[in-house]
Amino acid sequence: MNVETLIDGLFKGDIISTTRLISLIENDFLKAEEISRRIYPHTGNAHVVGITGPPGVGKSSLVNKLALGWNKRGKKIGIIAVDPSSPYSGGALLGDRIRMREITGIEGIFIRSMATRGSLGGLARATRDAINILDASGMYDVVIVETVGAGQSEVEIMRVAKTVVMVLCPGLGDEIQAMKAGAMEIADIFAVNKADKPEAIETVNDLERMLDYEGLNEGKAGWMPQIVSTSSTMNTGIDELVNKIEEHQEFLANMTSEEFHEKRAAMELIDTLITKIENEAIKKAKESPVYNELIKKIVEKRIDPYQAADIILKEYMQSSR
Amino acid sequence: MNVETLIDGLFKGDIISTTRLISLIENDFLKAEEISRRIYPHTGNAHVVGITGPPGVGKSSLVNKLALGWNKRGKKIGIIAVDPSSPYSGGALLGDRIRMREITGIEGIFIRSMATRGSLGGLARATRDAINILDASGMYDVVIVETVGAGQSEVEIMRVAKTVVMVLCPGLGDEIQAMKAGAMEIADIFAVNKADKPEAIETVNDLERMLDYEGLNEGKAGWMPQIVSTSSTMNTGIDELVNKIEEHQEFLANMTSEEFHEKRAAMELIDTLITKIENEAIKKAKESPVYNELIKKIVEKRIDPYQAADIILKEYMQSSR
Repeated sequence: MNVETLIDGLFKGDIISTTRLISLIENDFLKAEEISRRIYPHTGNAHVVGITGPPGVGKSSLVNKLALGWNKRGKKIGIIAVDPSSPYSGGALLGDRIRMREITGIEGIFIRSMATRGSLGGLARATRDAINILDASGMYDVVIVETVGAGQSEVEIMRVAKTVVMVLCPGLGDEIQAMKAGAMEIADIFAVNKADKPEAIETVNDLERMLDYEGLNEGKAGWMPQIVSTSSTMNTGIDELVNKIEEHQEFLANMTSEEFHEKRAAMELIDTLITKIENEAIKKAKESPVYNELIKKIVEKRIDPYQAADIILKEYMQSSR
Repeated sequence: MNVETLIDGLFKGDIISTTRLISLIENDFLKAEEISRRIYPHTGNAHVVGITGPPGVGKSSLVNKLALGWNKRGKKIGIIAVDPSSPYSGGALLGDRIRMREITGIEGIFIRSMATRGSLGGLARATRDAINILDASGMYDVVIVETVGAGQSEVEIMRVAKTVVMVLCPGLGDEIQAMKAGAMEIADIFAVNKADKPEAIETVNDLERMLDYEGLNEGKAGWMPQIVSTSSTMNTGIDELVNKIEEHQEFLANMTSEEFHEKRAAMELIDTLITKIENEAIKKAKESPVYNELIKKIVEKRIDPYQAADIILKEYMQSSR
């Protein structure tokens, strides 16, 4: 089936077409570009919610409950789950199977896992494209993207979200303090999960103090970061979390500053530019007749990687004229 | 002070010069290139050990104990700690202060924090350069690089290490299972930390089963991944961890396959190429007279980011002739 047919299917709400398009953008950069160009004018309608946070805080369960809760209010939910899986085999290891247990087959909820793979920036690009596919389908009011919050590429992914929910839980150790402080600046809402644990109240207090201390209670462009206590096992706080996200959505809708939109567009442009160049440069490098020779020279330290890169780059420029 | 003077200082083992050079490569890509070119022929002597794993497993404490234990055997240790800090403020938040408590002022241990900041690939590049600086100084037998193990950029950093230690601990939840499976393929040694907890034995058993299941007990190029139980608080297992790392170092020394070295050189070349192009392309993009116009067009959806990137790219190619 060609891209055009799949895109027709996408606009008609066909799930198979949606799934195939996402597979295409994952596996084929050139197809990804073709698809993204075609669907771009149809994007921008779904509210993109990023759910991030360190491993072990129960993000996946919370996303399940959030999707179910929101779905009960009549909203259609698309979920992109970015799996912290192998850089080598590139499979979404747990993948849809485990994640989907609770929400499989529920009308109006779509879930897709994406794996960490390929080149720098590749995952961020593919995730963004997948979000755009769900958005452009016109089938989903909300697209939730879930990812592990520690790495640079996850930060990149979170930049795509309009509302960022940072999930934390009690007793995560010292390192979380550092992460929290960094997270402060990207999170619009904090969900303190596992709120059934008695120590959860301390985590909430810590968080409140930190927001005060960092002066971040003044918020990003006027929005005060909110804290919600949630428990996926007790199924509590989910409604409040949905409310807070919708409040933030409304806040953004009223804000509509040109600066905000231009910042997002600039990020998209730069990210696309980087991915394009990376893909082309790597391809050119590997095709270059001097590639293997340069590598041997690097091993023998007869040349440094910078000089070698210059040689490849020069060749690339000349070939692109 | 100019770069040449600092590099002279570096080769003489001057700590101030070392620190200043690392600051330069963090903050100035052009200086980084100049420095890296100069020191490259002097690299390749230190054993680079990557310590990774999810937040909350106690990596920093373990790195402290490891450095102390190894140092007692007469080895000089350089540590690069990659902090999971803010993408915006770019500071190493906890930074050296907390990390250094235990090892500050100990002869033969050097520690430096690096922050997650800047463009994609930037952190991996800066970390690699910092490792090379410590290596080239000739002052350190071992360079330890510590990072959070979840993101793509952390995987990139781990590619620089010759021995990768994956730190885990009991009771990390389902998500860790997924991460572990991915980690299997990059880890040479697993440290099950917090081994004072009774559940640690289960984690070790799980891990053993997984290694069997994945067929990874056959190992990477003949190395069987090893499992060590450690406790930073009880200070146990540290000696064994040092032993295992040294065993792996010896294993690598005996292996010396050309393929191994060429693979590493190829990664270095590609990573350098990407960073070079990214930096130049972003600079060109922002300098371009059409940049602001393109962003406005993206906001209005009159152009998609791919088309806009093509325009910038074309301009870049022409200007580089």
